[in-house]
Amino acid sequence: MSKNKPLVGIIMGSQSDMPVIHEAAQILEQFEIPFELSIVSAHRTPLRMVEYAQTARKRGLQVIIAGAGGAAHLPGMVASLTSLPVIGVPVKSSNSIDGWDSVLSILQMPSGVPVATVALNGAKNAGILAAQILGSTDKAVAKKLDAYKDELRQKVEEMVEKVESQGYRGSKIGFSQT
Amino acid sequence: MSKNKPLVGIIMGSQSDMPVIHEAAQILEQFEIPFELSIVSAHRTPLRMVEYAQTARKRGLQVIIAGAGGAAHLPGMVASLTSLPVIGVPVKSSNSIDGWDSVLSILQMPSGVPVATVALNGAKNAGILAAQILGSTDKAVAKKLDAYKDELRQKVEEMVEKVESQGYRGSKIGFSQT
Amino acid sequence: MSKNKPLVGIIMGSQSDMPVIHEAAQILEQFEIPFELSIVSAHRTPLRMVEYAQTARKRGLQVIIAGAGGAAHLPGMVASLTSLPVIGVPVKSSNSIDGWDSVLSILQMPSGVPVATVALNGAKNAGILAAQILGSTDKAVAKKLDAYKDELRQKVEEMVEKVESQGYRGSKIGFSQT
Amino acid sequence: MSKNKPLVGIIMGSQSDMPVIHEAAQILEQFEIPFELSIVSAHRTPLRMVEYAQTARKRGLQVIIAGAGGAAHLPGMVASLTSLPVIGVPVKSSNSIDGWDSVLSILQMPSGVPVATVALNGAKNAGILAAQILGSTDKAVAKKLDAYKDELRQKVEEMVEKVESQGYRGSKIGFSQT
Amino acid sequence: MSKNKPLVGIIMGSQSDMPVIHEAAQILEQFEIPFELSIVSAHRTPLRMVEYAQTARKRGLQVIIAGAGGAAHLPGMVASLTSLPVIGVPVKSSNSIDGWDSVLSILQMPSGVPVATVALNGAKNAGILAAQILGSTDKAVAKKLDAYKDELRQKVEEMVEKVESQGYRGSKIGFSQT
Amino acid sequence: MSKNKPLVGIIMGSQSDMPVIHEAAQILEQFEIPFELSIVSAHRTPLRMVEYAQTARKRGLQVIIAGAGGAAHLPGMVASLTSLPVIGVPVKSSNSIDGWDSVLSILQMPSGVPVATVALNGAKNAGILAAQILGSTDKAVAKKLDAYKDELRQKVEEMVEKVESQGYRGSKIGFSQT
Amino acid sequence: MSKNKPLVGIIMGSQSDMPVIHEAAQILEQFEIPFELSIVSAHRTPLRMVEYAQTARKRGLQVIIAGAGGAAHLPGMVASLTSLPVIGVPVKSSNSIDGWDSVLSILQMPSGVPVATVALNGAKNAGILAAQILGSTDKAVAKKLDAYKDELRQKVEEMVEKVESQGYRGSKIGFSQT
Amino acid sequence: MSKNKPLVGIIMGSQSDMPVIHEAAQILEQFEIPFELSIVSAHRTPLRMVEYAQTARKRGLQVIIAGAGGAAHLPGMVASLTSLPVIGVPVKSSNSIDGWDSVLSILQMPSGVPVATVALNGAKNAGILAAQILGSTDKAVAKKLDAYKDELRQKVEEMVEKVESQGYRGSKIGFSQT
Repeated sequence: MSKNKPLVGIIMGSQSDMPVIHEAAQILEQFEIPFELSIVSAHRTPLRMVEYAQTARKRGLQVIIAGAGGAAHLPGMVASLTSLPVIGVPVKSSNSIDGWDSVLSILQMPSGVPVATVALNGAKNAGILAAQILGSTDKAVAKKLDAYKDELRQKVEEMVEKVESQGYRGSKIGFSQT
Repeated sequence: MSKNKPLVGIIMGSQSDMPVIHEAAQILEQFEIPFELSIVSAHRTPLRMVEYAQTARKRGLQVIIAGAGGAAHLPGMVASLTSLPVIGVPVKSSNSIDGWDSVLSILQMPSGVPVATVALNGAKNAGILAAQILGSTDKAVAKKLDAYKDELRQKVEEMVEKVESQGYRGSKIGFSQT
Repeated sequence: MSKNKPLVGIIMGSQSDMPVIHEAAQILEQFEIPFELSIVSAHRTPLRMVEYAQTARKRGLQVIIAGAGGAAHLPGMVASLTSLPVIGVPVKSSNSIDGWDSVLSILQMPSGVPVATVALNGAKNAGILAAQILGSTDKAVAKKLDAYKDELRQKVEEMVEKVESQGYRGSKIGFSQT
Repeated sequence: MSKNKPLVGIIMGSQSDMPVIHEAAQILEQFEIPFELSIVSAHRTPLRMVEYAQTARKRGLQVIIAGAGGAAHLPGMVASLTSLPVIGVPVKSSNSIDGWDSVLSILQMPSGVPVATVALNGAKNAGILAAQILGSTDKAVAKKLDAYKDELRQKVEEMVEKVESQGYRGSKIGFSQT
Repeated sequence: MSKNKPLVGIIMGSQSDMPVIHEAAQILEQFEIPFELSIVSAHRTPLRMVEYAQTARKRGLQVIIAGAGGAAHLPGMVASLTSLPVIGVPVKSSNSIDGWDSVLSILQMPSGVPVATVALNGAKNAGILAAQILGSTDKAVAKKLDAYKDELRQKVEEMVEKVESQGYRGSKIGFSQT
Repeated sequence: MSKNKPLVGIIMGSQSDMPVIHEAAQILEQFEIPFELSIVSAHRTPLRMVEYAQTARKRGLQVIIAGAGGAAHLPGMVASLTSLPVIGVPVKSSNSIDGWDSVLSILQMPSGVPVATVALNGAKNAGILAAQILGSTDKAVAKKLDAYKDELRQKVEEMVEKVESQGYRGSKIGFSQT
Repeated sequence: MSKNKPLVGIIMGSQSDMPVIHEAAQILEQFEIPFELSIVSAHRTPLRMVEYAQTARKRGLQVIIAGAGGAAHLPGMVASLTSLPVIGVPVKSSNSIDGWDSVLSILQMPSGVPVATVALNGAKNAGILAAQILGSTDKAVAKKLDAYKDELRQKVEEMVEKVESQGYRGSKIGFSQT
Repeated sequence: MSKNKPLVGIIMGSQSDMPVIHEAAQILEQFEIPFELSIVSAHRTPLRMVEYAQTARKRGLQVIIAGAGGAAHLPGMVASLTSLPVIGVPVKSSNSIDGWDSVLSILQMPSGVPVATVALNGAKNAGILAAQILGSTDKAVAKKLDAYKDELRQKVEEMVEKVESQGYRGSKIGFSQT
């Protein structure tokens, strides 16, 4: 897998989505999966969006991650313009009603045009899902994903040891966040 | 106002929205405002949607009414492609979660690209709002709207008379729908 | 279009709505559309509201923007008293249940009396929608709206350049808001 | 208490609310509390509403029951125009989003203008509450209310006997409604 | 009306409800309506609650205001034990799910046992509603309520003058809260 | 375990809850756990409720199952009057707002007074949970619960065989309910 | 691509999910993508679930579609046990609260373990998404997907012709479903 | 009851749940009920979860308390793997949509596999419920629970005295939290 040619396209509706969406980029970097990252606004640059989606497969992309908030049309519209799998990240933006608008406008796509929706602000999971899609046929990626699962497990096991040795009082330091 | 050249464009995402959306057409017909009626799907005919929206003003339209259900992107996307006022009708379609998805994906548009949203399944009100928009400068339409308001009032007054003369028992026939 | 005679009336239920509603005034100012701005409370000055709405068309207004929070009756009641188009801005006031009350009491108007509802706290979009309504027949306003759409696009394109040249790490400065 | 002069005014936004609202009339009749019943639409007969509310106290009313659905402005607007206690009945009308709009537009009144809100479709309880308000100073009504509470208790006790003697199998006849 | 004998009983489920509920006491004080104020917990002092409610009328109370949060059973249970009108104040307590639990457990009372519910945290309105209930037969209270309505109107009119003379820019000082 | 002395008390707020609540009785019968079944209304028979709850432990009950709908105060109030474990069954009654009121008024109990809440209309699970509570120390019940878990598994395995042999077309008969 | 060895595993929590889930099978059949179909219950056959998920990749599966309703743990638990992409279909089962429980328990997965969630009852889209995942590297599938997109467009265009030639009156036959 | 052998197992999905879940441990400690406390992640350590649940009864546990947030599968999955009573604590974690996902994925379990759900963040109540379950047959624990109920009552009575002697003004110190 060449690192120079992006396999995953990460786009977001606005630069204000970056604090959420950059986690998709970080995890792909960790998996050494080449990606591109840009801003494509469904409502302010609709023609750029059309072009982006229509050329995506030709440019070598295999998955698209699209994040947006409020009446979040970007993931669904991109999905209407390409037959690549599109992962939608609902962003809890400042103008959102507790995130419900972002979630529902991405998730509730009509028959024929799916968007693979992840949790509210779940950009990291969007990155992992993109890796899983590539890894469904790419053994190297699959191996990294299995290793990542192992790491997750090990981190819990370390927490287990700490909690079981210290009891809940020992971890009281962490309680300040309550 | 010529009856031949449509001033209002009514579009819906699918023929299955017709039972709701036709009420917009009916009320415009009643106001003798010329309109066109068609199907434009954001997700299945995105390029048709781009063309429809981009040519709308040139073709003489002054208002667009767009109805859709579920992850309802049509009204917002059309609004992103024209500077005409766009009225959005959230449709409680069969795949909708009690209508919340339709409402939120039409209402919660980001700064810069408004959609004039009416009530869930409120196509009749969309037609009236389109008339009000035309009527804000067209005196003939304004007059019809004032007459329509009068009619609404008179109908209530007729109900008042009936209820006050018969009491609630007299209208018990209607109770079966409880 | 004379700048002295207001074409748009902006009203809000309370001075506490000003931090939201002033954005409608700002954008109209930017479009050089003359407007008036005042406080009309449906619940504390109901007769003032009746008078305001009933005289609106005679006084030359072509559109009314009404903002309110909680059980927000101002936009709908004004719409019941005039045949001008009324734009409703649901305000997420301090006594609101996450904004749902404001949104639903403005949006869900009965057949016959529409309110053109915009997003929660979407006063800027209310201003743009008012301009679009005027611009549906006024070419000068339409031109400004098209220019405004262009600006929106250009700002995104500038963001695109920045993000594409710096990558997500370069914009990490902005991440502190997460 | 003269039966001829109504003490309670029952109003509803539309004749279609009658199947719900008539229960308020029925229970007042049972308590022998004189009432008037009419239709007052906030949105279609706003001036009638103003007049109704402003003359209510002078006409001898002591409580007003107002029922409405969707963006239900009638109870709150009447409360803004009289200092009598106003009981609001949210009606789950056909155009309502599961009743949430009716409930929130009646309940969430701003400081200064309360509406005594009862449950969705709770017109019977509105009637009882009106009786309780009269009964807070009228001993004859209070006595009837205490007798009514007794009846409620006795009906449950009869059910208890039936269930305890027959077991749940004996009452299986009623299960068909599941 | 003697100031020594309380006519209104204000109770709350916990001292932590005081920051909300004290507004009911303040407004009753302003109306010179004698009241008592105490803590009655449905879940921690159920028998005290039974006694409080059962003796309320005998002790001369004419209205009860009960505030509680979360699974808020106090208002409804008190209403089950007295035939006095009970006003329920849903409190958005720290353990509440955005206030929905408080609102629904107070509002949605079954047929036969109404609670006059006011807005979330609407203790001031609970006090005004209590005054309105007393004022439905007590002319002195009714007069004070009319005066209070006048004050509300005058305060808005003062705001109007200020806003209309200064424009929205003059009030920009208040915008910082956005 | 004697079959004559009930260990579980099943109560419901109204006979109309029987179509839901009887499933708790059925499953306890299947587990051969003696139970009593009655109607106790928090709002119509509050004193009966107090007596029922206060005598429950003395009468030999070890668990109480309480079902109610709307503003469902029965489970929480019973829990306030006994230190036995109380299982709450939210019932989606006809006057409920989609069941949310029932769920939240049972689930959201304040600190100190828990109710073990099961799913909306989950009376069968309430019965199983009661059995699990008894079975936490009673080996015979525990054995029955393990056998029941086995049965559940076997029923799925039978379905598996049927589906895997017939494919989805073979089960099309069942599709009519879509 | 051999038709005999399944590439997609479709599982559901119960046979009662079949009326929804079979649409995933139908569309895969249409795309000639080999799949297996079975019942795997997270709560009744947890060990079968563990085995199913852990062996999925070895058995040649490239994508898993998992549908479930209520507290729907199947998709997320399968995702915790395999690094294959898992598509979750929230089913609006009879015991679901309007589908919200199904949606949220599938969508809101924690960091590290994504589920690609589709719309409520969106099994057809789950099938298409599975095809898109295969098609991200398999050109034959990609071609079929592009053809499918074309068909969707053509069907809309046929509807357009019909509606534009007949007007909304001509399609009134369809209105009966309102 | 030996203090060395735990009777209650408290587990949580992540160390980040500790600030909520430790309250269950604290109250059990207060009741002198031996417990164990650990981290078991349904999604990151699914096999550890299987082992934990399957060995729970053999290891002497009589109740399990499981807390988790978001798509919270831990309590329900543990309940699928043991016939011990499982108490679920929905945690309002940082990635939760206002807690609704946590509540619904724990509460809405299918027929056959109950979870005794407590309020959002209600870990203290989970501890008390565990004690009640033990106390349904253990007289010593029952006695402690009755004493705890007494304490709750006494604390309220102390508050009552304070509030009744000082009035609401005296407690104004506490108002700052408004």
